[in-house]
Amino acid sequence: MDNKKNRARVRVPGTSANCGPGFDCLGLATTIYNYLDLTLLKSSKVIVESTGEDADKIPRGRRNLTWQAVRRLLQEVGREDEFKGAIIRMKNNVPISRGLGSSSTAIVAGLTAANEILGSPLNRHGLLKLATELEGHPDNVAPAIFGGFTVSVMDKGEVQTFSFLPRIKLKLIVAVPDFELSTQLARKVLPKNVSMKDAIFNVSRASMLIAALVEGREDLLPLAFDDALHQPYRKKLVPGMTEVFEAAKAAGAFGSAISGAGSCLIAFTSARTQLEEKISSAMVEAFAAHNINSKALILDVDKQGAKIIRR
Amino acid sequence: MDNKKNRARVRVPGTSANCGPGFDCLGLATTIYNYLDLTLLKSSKVIVESTGEDADKIPRGRRNLTWQAVRRLLQEVGREDEFKGAIIRMKNNVPISRGLGSSSTAIVAGLTAANEILGSPLNRHGLLKLATELEGHPDNVAPAIFGGFTVSVMDKGEVQTFSFLPRIKLKLIVAVPDFELSTQLARKVLPKNVSMKDAIFNVSRASMLIAALVEGREDLLPLAFDDALHQPYRKKLVPGMTEVFEAAKAAGAFGSAISGAGSCLIAFTSARTQLEEKISSAMVEAFAAHNINSKALILDVDKQGAKIIRR
Repeated sequence: MDNKKNRARVRVPGTSANCGPGFDCLGLATTIYNYLDLTLLKSSKVIVESTGEDADKIPRGRRNLTWQAVRRLLQEVGREDEFKGAIIRMKNNVPISRGLGSSSTAIVAGLTAANEILGSPLNRHGLLKLATELEGHPDNVAPAIFGGFTVSVMDKGEVQTFSFLPRIKLKLIVAVPDFELSTQLARKVLPKNVSMKDAIFNVSRASMLIAALVEGREDLLPLAFDDALHQPYRKKLVPGMTEVFEAAKAAGAFGSAISGAGSCLIAFTSARTQLEEKISSAMVEAFAAHNINSKALILDVDKQGAKIIRR
Repeated sequence: MDNKKNRARVRVPGTSANCGPGFDCLGLATTIYNYLDLTLLKSSKVIVESTGEDADKIPRGRRNLTWQAVRRLLQEVGREDEFKGAIIRMKNNVPISRGLGSSSTAIVAGLTAANEILGSPLNRHGLLKLATELEGHPDNVAPAIFGGFTVSVMDKGEVQTFSFLPRIKLKLIVAVPDFELSTQLARKVLPKNVSMKDAIFNVSRASMLIAALVEGREDLLPLAFDDALHQPYRKKLVPGMTEVFEAAKAAGAFGSAISGAGSCLIAFTSARTQLEEKISSAMVEAFAAHNINSKALILDVDKQGAKIIRR
């Protein structure tokens, strides 16, 4: 049953979507990883074992998101009659419902591992298409698959993604507060319409952010993480957001953003200045001043995306 | 009076703002040029001579925009008591009120030439600040000063600009219709509010456009010139806009945009494919089908911006 031919192990990065101005299009992969050891089964059993971060919250059986991704891939390539079940062993480091793309790691891990076992019938763009369909948007699955930063555009229901590595060595400081935030709730607080001024604000910042990252211009980053389209509405869902951003900036960060739909906040700094410890303390203290416990992760940009570890 | 020390000659490129999704932040310099031969005078005479494109439309005397720029620079550096007048000789190729930044060339030429005569008290960023103040926005003056493509961000009234040369050799096809369009009118048709969806549409396209240009990814450009924030409202001011865009695309362009606030339309193609003649004919024909006479300019991206030709 635990046949070597039917088994693959993958590593998938946690991700941070939006990065401030790049609402619903920009994302980045980080060096916090979830691991999946997948065995495809001819029988229709679905066995899920999970250890690590929030292990108890992961659905077992056929409701499991990784299984749903595996099954979707099997359907896509016409092999669903051959493999009807799986053993899914997960070792997780990415916290759930905090804006670090945990559901994307589950989807991308299932797709990538199943694709590997089946002899790679799909390339990464094929995997992206399925992952976007399963997740509903490409913001986290794109960087989880490709690594680095990703710009995604939806065009007539199709996703197109460009991934790049910044020419600035960044350190990412993620303050993880001890409360979850549902993406649904974070969507609900957003207005249907925004001012033209705010739209232009984000178009210009997102453009500046991409240009500064791609061309390695640290001097342009202090303006480039600001947002007017989603964070002003979401700050009430993350008590202390403004103060955490200010604390990070005062401690030397280029800027900060809500990671995805929150609750994590992410600050960006240069590895060169070695201010990451100072920034992380400042962020945790600013949260504490609002009676929010948090822990800080100091991460790099992941360069590889989803990766096969061994067959 | 016509002292060599008090005289400078400059060349300034015509520019195209917005480039589709980069509304009010993106611009590019083109290889169509206006020339200024400036002599600063101790007397308070302002003599304006103009030849070339729309020469008869250029205001004489102290209302002349180039003179206003010269005077603003003299004030900025505290030399307005020393030079109270000027001889302004212009040779223009950029048509007026067509969306190719003719007013920006007048401003940038005056600033650049006066700055040169005075021994360069300001650097290009200093010139940009004054030019943005005079023009009201940085969209055209930024590429006129720096050349290439520019991303400009306004922050608390201050402008910050990043300029870059695309890693794709582009050809620009500009269809110049035989009617003018005032920027004021083109502003008036825009709504105060837009949908979040349209805002995200532009954020993602502008991000993709910058990334594709900087990284040299032609394959990503066909999606990247689309806009939802301004062109849908302005198309009624440029009869045939949609059809000219479609004709350009069918003839091989990556995409098209209104140049600035119009009336010109600009198509983007790869120099490699040598389709610029075909695209320009297609655009002129599509305009003609709407009873609009136009001429087409085939241009490159200017790489230098405003340039001193001789002292």
